[in-house]
Amino acid sequence: MSQRVDVAVIGASGYTALELFKILLRHPGARVALATSRQDERLDSLHPSLAGRLDLTCVPFDAQQVADHCQYAFLGLPHAASMEVVPQLRARGVKVIDLSADYRLKDKETYADWYNHKHTDPNGLAEAVYGLPELYRSRIVQAGLIANPGCYTSTSILALAPLVAHNAIERSGIIIDAKSGVSGGGRTPKLSFHFPECNESFTAYGVGRHRHTPEIEQVLSDVGANTGSGDPVDVIFTPHLVPMDRGILATIYATPKTPAVEHDLLEMYREFYKASPFVRVVGHLPATKDSAHTNFCDITIRVVKGRILVITCLDNLLKGASGVAVQNFNLMTGHPETTALL
Amino acid sequence: MSQRVDVAVIGASGYTALELFKILLRHPGARVALATSRQDERLDSLHPSLAGRLDLTCVPFDAQQVADHCQYAFLGLPHAASMEVVPQLRARGVKVIDLSADYRLKDKETYADWYNHKHTDPNGLAEAVYGLPELYRSRIVQAGLIANPGCYTSTSILALAPLVAHNAIERSGIIIDAKSGVSGGGRTPKLSFHFPECNESFTAYGVGRHRHTPEIEQVLSDVGANTGSGDPVDVIFTPHLVPMDRGILATIYATPKTPAVEHDLLEMYREFYKASPFVRVVGHLPATKDSAHTNFCDITIRVVKGRILVITCLDNLLKGASGVAVQNFNLMTGHPETTALL
Amino acid sequence: MSQRVDVAVIGASGYTALELFKILLRHPGARVALATSRQDERLDSLHPSLAGRLDLTCVPFDAQQVADHCQYAFLGLPHAASMEVVPQLRARGVKVIDLSADYRLKDKETYADWYNHKHTDPNGLAEAVYGLPELYRSRIVQAGLIANPGCYTSTSILALAPLVAHNAIERSGIIIDAKSGVSGGGRTPKLSFHFPECNESFTAYGVGRHRHTPEIEQVLSDVGANTGSGDPVDVIFTPHLVPMDRGILATIYATPKTPAVEHDLLEMYREFYKASPFVRVVGHLPATKDSAHTNFCDITIRVVKGRILVITCLDNLLKGASGVAVQNFNLMTGHPETTALL
Amino acid sequence: MSQRVDVAVIGASGYTALELFKILLRHPGARVALATSRQDERLDSLHPSLAGRLDLTCVPFDAQQVADHCQYAFLGLPHAASMEVVPQLRARGVKVIDLSADYRLKDKETYADWYNHKHTDPNGLAEAVYGLPELYRSRIVQAGLIANPGCYTSTSILALAPLVAHNAIERSGIIIDAKSGVSGGGRTPKLSFHFPECNESFTAYGVGRHRHTPEIEQVLSDVGANTGSGDPVDVIFTPHLVPMDRGILATIYATPKTPAVEHDLLEMYREFYKASPFVRVVGHLPATKDSAHTNFCDITIRVVKGRILVITCLDNLLKGASGVAVQNFNLMTGHPETTALL
Repeated sequence: MSQRVDVAVIGASGYTALELFKILLRHPGARVALATSRQDERLDSLHPSLAGRLDLTCVPFDAQQVADHCQYAFLGLPHAASMEVVPQLRARGVKVIDLSADYRLKDKETYADWYNHKHTDPNGLAEAVYGLPELYRSRIVQAGLIANPGCYTSTSILALAPLVAHNAIERSGIIIDAKSGVSGGGRTPKLSFHFPECNESFTAYGVGRHRHTPEIEQVLSDVGANTGSGDPVDVIFTPHLVPMDRGILATIYATPKTPAVEHDLLEMYREFYKASPFVRVVGHLPATKDSAHTNFCDITIRVVKGRILVITCLDNLLKGASGVAVQNFNLMTGHPETTALL
Repeated sequence: MSQRVDVAVIGASGYTALELFKILLRHPGARVALATSRQDERLDSLHPSLAGRLDLTCVPFDAQQVADHCQYAFLGLPHAASMEVVPQLRARGVKVIDLSADYRLKDKETYADWYNHKHTDPNGLAEAVYGLPELYRSRIVQAGLIANPGCYTSTSILALAPLVAHNAIERSGIIIDAKSGVSGGGRTPKLSFHFPECNESFTAYGVGRHRHTPEIEQVLSDVGANTGSGDPVDVIFTPHLVPMDRGILATIYATPKTPAVEHDLLEMYREFYKASPFVRVVGHLPATKDSAHTNFCDITIRVVKGRILVITCLDNLLKGASGVAVQNFNLMTGHPETTALL
Repeated sequence: MSQRVDVAVIGASGYTALELFKILLRHPGARVALATSRQDERLDSLHPSLAGRLDLTCVPFDAQQVADHCQYAFLGLPHAASMEVVPQLRARGVKVIDLSADYRLKDKETYADWYNHKHTDPNGLAEAVYGLPELYRSRIVQAGLIANPGCYTSTSILALAPLVAHNAIERSGIIIDAKSGVSGGGRTPKLSFHFPECNESFTAYGVGRHRHTPEIEQVLSDVGANTGSGDPVDVIFTPHLVPMDRGILATIYATPKTPAVEHDLLEMYREFYKASPFVRVVGHLPATKDSAHTNFCDITIRVVKGRILVITCLDNLLKGASGVAVQNFNLMTGHPETTALL
Repeated sequence: MSQRVDVAVIGASGYTALELFKILLRHPGARVALATSRQDERLDSLHPSLAGRLDLTCVPFDAQQVADHCQYAFLGLPHAASMEVVPQLRARGVKVIDLSADYRLKDKETYADWYNHKHTDPNGLAEAVYGLPELYRSRIVQAGLIANPGCYTSTSILALAPLVAHNAIERSGIIIDAKSGVSGGGRTPKLSFHFPECNESFTAYGVGRHRHTPEIEQVLSDVGANTGSGDPVDVIFTPHLVPMDRGILATIYATPKTPAVEHDLLEMYREFYKASPFVRVVGHLPATKDSAHTNFCDITIRVVKGRILVITCLDNLLKGASGVAVQNFNLMTGHPETTALL
């Protein structure tokens, strides 16, 4: 077994950071050497579930301190904060897996449009590799900066990539009706995530304006670029809030170019993902519960009145965030892709 | 105020029956005189929340006994059971509001196809009026037998009726992505409704096969019959289960015939429903919580990339079942439509 | 039916205010004429569930404006804020039902100890009547200022009053193990009420330090003052947070002075509450669901190994707050106690 | 690393079996070689979350088949069913970890009284070791048959053992007010576990009659047998149902023999459990969420008005069932106690 590498978690207070800590505690090739947060605070005060498991006190962020102690850093910062930190770490040779949105959109203008913030690290943007192993495994292996995908985007992209790669569907008017547990909204208290507001309730939000939309379109357009059609992919993305902690399910409606057969599509998906240990193409209708607390993404297909329905779910904090982050780390460090994730 | 009429609740053990009891207790023009269930059992044993509020012991069903004591009967029976009972009650002059699916589909063959059961009461089918007051108020006033709508169907129909009536959308390929709380599945214990199975989980079910599909299509086709186009309406209906007790939200995707403008559509909806006290056309994205425990249906519209999104919610047990049943009863008995429902 | 009186709701943004609005909309003798909040804001923006039901815009608090338009005011303000407002309203002749804690504790020092705030309205304290109708009905009828009880306190007091009044239990070492839904914590977002924190979790809080403790002890000591024993009542009160919206259940352990018999105790309770329409003494173990969304308090008794267990539940926002507030209003205005509450 | 041993899971369809499979998949020293259920069925049909992780088809139970392939068997059968199976397995040399209640009560009459069933395997009763490692580690190491503890019992016993072992509390009148998530009720659908019944509700059940009562008393009496007092321990145990999947929290009230000091008690607990890696004595009030999905038991102490409160929680399916089962397996097989459990 290879020697452990020391890693830092920058921004330790959120839910994705907590999941990172829990996975890394099981990882034979990693040791959490440093965690940062705005206040000095014991990690098990921020996350009581870590009591007795990880004896660390958070420190404020200092790039040199990170570089002195760690070879890898996972960033659990809000967008705009990440791009302040990344260049400092990269300049000091630290490899970075960034869980924010800052390096996902290749185009600075698109970033500025959707995030209302000028992008200040064009070099980072140029270097960053989109961290979806099922599509970009070989690039990830060599990357120094990973743009870890959004939770809705991984769900949507994994669901649609085989169809787009095979040029099997119309690229316009794809409908992604997505539903997420509340942990996807982060750990900062807000009225919309206050228990008595979202418990026993279901609602759509951000209709037509959710920031994962351009990310989905960019990656799927890239997937489809080398097929017969070079048309960009265009989606209608509607997120909803489900009164549960974790899990995302997307119900996707696409129009096939030629009449679709359920069985053939399932076979196509199985073939497409045969080398991907965390994608399960299943015959039954998947429930979020069956992938919750795992790094699996479950996908099935139905054909209804000539339309293709792809129904996909995963755990938004794991396969949708911290699980795939460690999957990327495994690829970067030469560990088996599944290490610490099964 | 008119004198109270005596009503019976046939099939008293379910959730819709419980909601009926609670509404009728507040109704100045109705008195629950009789309740039936398979066993003799005190009503407050079946429903402890009725302790001290309604002092009744259930009796087994006997049509003559019902007719001797009651002018109206609400039927909370499973499908196929209802059509056994309805002819006996109608033959004795009892007016019936049937909450089952037995009299909703006008075509016997369609019924047999979707419910796997021959329809045995064609006279009843001919007599029945579809009990959606927003569309059929004048017929309901005179009806002897009401086919009370399904919960998903009311949600879907109220959301789409203005667009279909104005011939404003394509009638094929309408997508209804619907989400329901678990009480919609009834009170009989099953693994899929067992708490640890559906809590903290979200899943699609009955994709392409849900029995509310032909009901939605039949009514919307009827709504659209007198417009320029006589084409039938055809929907892709996908139900999902939400880990909450009550509430349905449908996110509906339709293609406009001419470019759509959000503001104009909202105005069209307000005009369409101006005489309907329980439909609220709202500007914000509605949450199921805001219509839960009420008889309101909330509707809003968004236009995204040229597609019309209608987002609608209601309480599946009230506006989706027992509330609209009493709304129908109010129309039949000459009470204000809102009596006992605000 | 008497004419409607105009009432104000001071502090309109919280959950108890919302419940007040919903009850008062059904009340034949009341009209909500005025609502205040810190910002001018439409009431249905604060509470979307009131859309189409109550057409009001909130105004900032102005005592004279309230007095000009309203005879009664319900106060949904935080503690310490209430005692600023009450004297202004009382000086102008407005009758007040205060849902805060400011007038519940008769002793200023006790108030200061538990609320870390000096009491600034001793006249109000002297005037205030504790608004628990089951114990103080005759005083409430004549009151100008009602101290509406806390939710945990009503639960605990109604559960123990018969035993204390009959001097049937030891007054020291009574254990009240209480469990509340999250709406009891109010509507201000906090980490401990953030959905992903309290969903799928159960925890004790404020152990030995909850502010409802002295309130329970004060009222029960008063109840017991005229019995053979004049000893004060002393309780160990342990609140817990349940991942649900509403409902409180208390499991109470008391030591009988003479051997206890379940059946006799149930009879004693039924007798004690025979004139109280909202207390249901039941034989079964009550669930919060059966009193949720009602103004009922359900109570049962078990004797286990010689100890008396009283198990009681109610809806914290209704019988525990806004429902009992209207019950008090009914008594003050000469309406039947149950008006708008069944 | 030692070679893997082949293990069987007898009764594969329940929640504890599922957790066993998930833990054993991570265990370097175990391989699930066989699973039984009443029907031949693929394991991932019973548990879709195991798709792609464990490729097994269940077989009906056959003792010889188990013995031919496995050295250890975990039994996830209902009580009374277990004692049919255990003698057959023991006769063939298979070591057994029984998760049912059948071998927990040392006295046959007590078993018959509480389980309404004659005990048919007195030899097994004599052989069985109570599988709570924190108390019986050295016996477990040598055991052939483990009676794996109940979930409520582990919670209660771990909370009280230090106090009883130090003879620090009165042994009579101990109150255990316990609250459990719904998965504790098993996977068989019943009305009381039907989602719309127990969601948004909280209730006590089995008051004074829960079968874990004699188990708690037996083990704590054993713990206290060698102290100054040989009195048996006697508890009032009140279970409640919490609307969440998993987690148990017990709030325990005990009377100290001499005045209690919080800090000293916490120290005493830390000392008592210093060799037990899965007991965390914490200063804060623990939430079930912080031990959910782990094998930890969190304990804290408060002294309120002279009474000792012990507040304890754990995951009912892990530390309360399958986690401790593997902890026992680790001890029996010579693995570190924490293997596969961190």
